[in-house]
Amino acid sequence: MMEQLTVKNLVKKYRHTMVLDNISFNLEPAKIYGLLGRNGAGKTTLLNIMSSRIFPTSGEVRIGGEDINNDDDLLSKIFLMSEANLYPREMNIHQTFDLADAAYGNFNYDLANRLLTAFELDGKSKVTNLSTGQRTASKLIVALAVNASYILLDEPILGLDANHRELFYQELVKTYQEKPRTFVLSTHLIEEIQQLVEHVLVLDRQKILLNDDLDTILAKAYAISGPAQLVDDYVTGLKVLKSEMLGNIKTAYVFDKLDDQRAIPDQVKINHYDLQHLFIYLTDGGEK
Amino acid sequence: MMEQLTVKNLVKKYRHTMVLDNISFNLEPAKIYGLLGRNGAGKTTLLNIMSSRIFPTSGEVRIGGEDINNDDDLLSKIFLMSEANLYPREMNIHQTFDLADAAYGNFNYDLANRLLTAFELDGKSKVTNLSTGQRTASKLIVALAVNASYILLDEPILGLDANHRELFYQELVKTYQEKPRTFVLSTHLIEEIQQLVEHVLVLDRQKILLNDDLDTILAKAYAISGPAQLVDDYVTGLKVLKSEMLGNIKTAYVFDKLDDQRAIPDQVKINHYDLQHLFIYLTDGGEK
Repeated sequence: MMEQLTVKNLVKKYRHTMVLDNISFNLEPAKIYGLLGRNGAGKTTLLNIMSSRIFPTSGEVRIGGEDINNDDDLLSKIFLMSEANLYPREMNIHQTFDLADAAYGNFNYDLANRLLTAFELDGKSKVTNLSTGQRTASKLIVALAVNASYILLDEPILGLDANHRELFYQELVKTYQEKPRTFVLSTHLIEEIQQLVEHVLVLDRQKILLNDDLDTILAKAYAISGPAQLVDDYVTGLKVLKSEMLGNIKTAYVFDKLDDQRAIPDQVKINHYDLQHLFIYLTDGGEK
Repeated sequence: MMEQLTVKNLVKKYRHTMVLDNISFNLEPAKIYGLLGRNGAGKTTLLNIMSSRIFPTSGEVRIGGEDINNDDDLLSKIFLMSEANLYPREMNIHQTFDLADAAYGNFNYDLANRLLTAFELDGKSKVTNLSTGQRTASKLIVALAVNASYILLDEPILGLDANHRELFYQELVKTYQEKPRTFVLSTHLIEEIQQLVEHVLVLDRQKILLNDDLDTILAKAYAISGPAQLVDDYVTGLKVLKSEMLGNIKTAYVFDKLDDQRAIPDQVKINHYDLQHLFIYLTDGGEK
């Protein structure tokens, strides 16, 4: 039975700088999450704490109610793919598979070897000799083939060209369907992962700003366009993230439930807008 | 008067490796180009030759018929923003502006200072101390404010979060409208630049695979879906880049002019697909 991962009241300070400010959320088993945040929002620190690479100032990460730091069995349920290169200098790609097998057991060598071919990699290549895109691909293979329940991916598409990004998205969906487990994708390419993720966490200025199902979020993202006065009347009382004028036409980007009772004037058009723009409007001004 | 830039029969070999294999194309004045290619296709080498940072094995780059390497005035019409950090260690952002002003003249300090604020940068920061995203932003500011007719951008969005990418796209359009000049965007984020570029160059396996206006290209990109037999009949004689089966429904991704004379069966649906997928289907299998 797979159990929930709980992040509870997590605080991380470096000297006097607050990096994570009382973060709490849950990860369900067998779900694909998007972790979004501007540069400097604290995403990498959060993922490092969730995989016990660094310790929080206070707060806990639990699986099934048990602190992960007190239990090696729990730690071996969590895998982090990160930008940091933790492999010894002389290690080749095949050996990184063996390392994942030794640490987590039951490594999926069949999948990994098939993906080596798909990503056009030679398993005998040393990891340190790979280009950025190749190194990312080799790490993605480990992340997709490792036997863990919670797989955290920090910038999983760094340096990949469009073809290899598409390949990764397809293989992620395929392995998830065969063996459902939890993936957390932390990336700036929001437009591309919108099709993959079920649930979205937005970190902004060291806090959780949004934590909801993608469908619920997108159902509140409306662009309302028309003559300025009509648009202003219509959006009164709604949460408007941003508005633009083009000639006489105003567009208001709303993040709210629309009141279906009210009549919509003929000249006013209502459209949905996408997750990437919602993210931008929600977090503008939030870079450190 | 602005003159055309001509790349003619460019060849670049490193020992026995062909990096560019007889490349020819023109860049028109005042146009925004997308330069697309897989990792290893030769994009960076091409841009380095076009800005005279490296020399070709054979072939030429000309402006108005004159070889750029014979004429410093012509060289000062071309600016390359690249991943390589060419600035001295101790140089701060303000000083990189002065360097661009000294080399190209008439640097747009007003724009540059406004963009420093927009990208949340401190002009007194040393370039070497910046994060990847901040360094990219500081280089983009120089590229948008420099006084050159041909501005080549190699991976201009490296490390930028979605908000700063959107800011860059908006500022590029704004400065282009105020003072039309030629930009070449070389990037893997094809989906995002589709809205910006007028003309597309695709480099694949060391050669030019595609060189056409975006509108002309997209007008030939059709996804044809329906019962397999009907789709197969319809696409006979057309160039099919890829096809997929989902249950009994086949989708063929065509890159060709459709013959409007032929009747389309009711069960067959025809939709356009986007530049990023066209690129992927055209170049799959083309990574070095």
